[in-house]
Amino acid sequence: MEKHIFRTSIISSHLSQENLEAELTMNPTASKKSEEIANFVEIFPILKAEILKDLPLMDMPKDKIEWIDKLIEINVAGGKMNRGLTVLHSLQLLVEGRTLTRSEIFKANVLGWCVEWLQAFFLVADDIMDQSITRRGQPCWYRQTNPSSSNNSLIGNIAINDSFILESCIYTLIKKYFRNEPYYADVLDIFHETAYQTELGQLLDLTTQPNRGDFSMFTLDTYRRIVKYKTAYYSFYLPVALSMLMAGIVSKPSFDTARDILLPMGEYFQIQDDFLDCYGEPSVIGKIGRDIEENKCSWLICQAILNGTPAQIALLKKHYGLDSKVDVEIVKRIYNEIDIQKIFRQYEDQSYGQLVEKIKLVKIMPQEVFLKLLSRIYKREV
Amino acid sequence: MEKHIFRTSIISSHLSQENLEAELTMNPTASKKSEEIANFVEIFPILKAEILKDLPLMDMPKDKIEWIDKLIEINVAGGKMNRGLTVLHSLQLLVEGRTLTRSEIFKANVLGWCVEWLQAFFLVADDIMDQSITRRGQPCWYRQTNPSSSNNSLIGNIAINDSFILESCIYTLIKKYFRNEPYYADVLDIFHETAYQTELGQLLDLTTQPNRGDFSMFTLDTYRRIVKYKTAYYSFYLPVALSMLMAGIVSKPSFDTARDILLPMGEYFQIQDDFLDCYGEPSVIGKIGRDIEENKCSWLICQAILNGTPAQIALLKKHYGLDSKVDVEIVKRIYNEIDIQKIFRQYEDQSYGQLVEKIKLVKIMPQEVFLKLLSRIYKREV
Repeated sequence: MEKHIFRTSIISSHLSQENLEAELTMNPTASKKSEEIANFVEIFPILKAEILKDLPLMDMPKDKIEWIDKLIEINVAGGKMNRGLTVLHSLQLLVEGRTLTRSEIFKANVLGWCVEWLQAFFLVADDIMDQSITRRGQPCWYRQTNPSSSNNSLIGNIAINDSFILESCIYTLIKKYFRNEPYYADVLDIFHETAYQTELGQLLDLTTQPNRGDFSMFTLDTYRRIVKYKTAYYSFYLPVALSMLMAGIVSKPSFDTARDILLPMGEYFQIQDDFLDCYGEPSVIGKIGRDIEENKCSWLICQAILNGTPAQIALLKKHYGLDSKVDVEIVKRIYNEIDIQKIFRQYEDQSYGQLVEKIKLVKIMPQEVFLKLLSRIYKREV
Repeated sequence: MEKHIFRTSIISSHLSQENLEAELTMNPTASKKSEEIANFVEIFPILKAEILKDLPLMDMPKDKIEWIDKLIEINVAGGKMNRGLTVLHSLQLLVEGRTLTRSEIFKANVLGWCVEWLQAFFLVADDIMDQSITRRGQPCWYRQTNPSSSNNSLIGNIAINDSFILESCIYTLIKKYFRNEPYYADVLDIFHETAYQTELGQLLDLTTQPNRGDFSMFTLDTYRRIVKYKTAYYSFYLPVALSMLMAGIVSKPSFDTARDILLPMGEYFQIQDDFLDCYGEPSVIGKIGRDIEENKCSWLICQAILNGTPAQIALLKKHYGLDSKVDVEIVKRIYNEIDIQKIFRQYEDQSYGQLVEKIKLVKIMPQEVFLKLLSRIYKREV
């Protein structure tokens, strides 16, 4: 049975449009999953409309409303939505079998979209700071054409203010739907804290970009601190903590337990990301990895420095961080010599084992919340 | 008597160190004022220390803590602090004669500093977006040397993330000092709403920078909308509304009344700013105005377009927005021909009169709150 589900989930992730209906009839798990996604996707236009409908009351001209419409549409929608969907998934498991009301489902998804909005806020700004070119297959927001300009100039640094506007939408939405909930202030607190943690992670990351050839900062300690703050809090802890607030959980030890599991899970997730950047199938992951070219403090280079011979490390210093096919090939060849793929597979199994052990000790809340989340990312290829 | 106070306040703003003590002994108003300022200034290091002390617990390395220390020190302190001081001033008048407790004074000043922190968040980002060179007599934050860099490179776009960190400090501080107050969520709501309004104002401003020589956007309607959103909400409404929350005011009509007076007052303040940019004494206002050179949608150019002859407007189109002394002189000459200074003085008296009339109708709260604020900016020279 388990094997069957595993196969199905692999198949369903590559499901073609014409097979979808048959698949859903045959497989109730896939059907439920796709219904959840449809449900989540469905409320996005409702939330966007909520934001836009305030703007004429604030005397905003039509072209500015269109600007904000496009800003939200392009940057908030179109992601994988895993973070956003996690709020509902966790809430469902937290209430242990009870069927959620329509209102609870809707509200969990509103918070889920707020997580996606938070990510959009950061990505729009990160792309400017990293001088990235494309995001999700189209030009980064700051590189799109400025709709107010008569001479086709780019949005450019106006995107900084646009990222602020995306952040503000989070608080507008939370106020609209949660102002009368007893946990309203807790939801605000956790968004504030998570934003701050992510910004500290971004500060760590931006100030740990050494000159090319300087490997002194590429240590696992530094790597793990960046990942914890920049990614794990907002991607793993935040959505689960939000579902806990909705479930009425108030005990600090519960949140400590969640954090203690979800931050290492977020680290594992980012390490997979780094691995896929080099070894993933571009058509599946939807991008061509560029960590080597961009001199990134990736888990792979940290491991290569730990496991390589002095000669291999000297060669890496010479060729890492250069934007040429030849140099990248040499780096990848040394990665293969060191057998980074094997080191990763060992890490993956060990990390998975440790997380499962930790989860098995949890008594304060349903273990399923964490196990389900872990099962969704274990050995992921996308 | 009134005349005496007026003279004293002019003198005291240019007070030399050695005369300060004598002045304070002679004039109890000046003494109270300077005590208030000293009190306000005094708590800044306390608040900064509160932010910094969390960072080692979050595993931040020493050099990042120093980074954030400097970020706060340079960008939050050093302003005129009028906005920040307004919270305490208003609260004092709202409680109508009762002496405030030490705790109330401290908390009003914490909120005042949060207003200053909000301004710092916007100024750091605005300076990048406007590509400004200096701020308060030193290089803009993004143009200062990156302390992490070995080759004296600039902070540059990392300042975008730094502006986010400044914003996050607001919510850290509010949580530390107000989490158990019944009005905690109201304080958060008003900061969120004000940030959003200011961002919409910044969007209006950034997308109303026409090509040089195109005067079609320089209308009073456009001007007033930008000023209301970009300046008036955070500079005038926010500090007073915060003091109202502290005073236990909950009625919506009170906040509507405050808004109805404070937004036009903010507009008057910005128009003064535009006037002083051209006609203020650089040594007094602390900067050399550049609105003409930078093709700004200033109140002066809007008025010149309204009051000039077709020939004068044609000349303005030719010379406005150019960074050369000759062009600026021609613009200023036409301003003098149109007698913009007289138009401004007439506007100033009319605006003052209208505000006083409006304030005299207020019954729901002490009129003094608004009258005092107005008296502080009427005919200001700095």
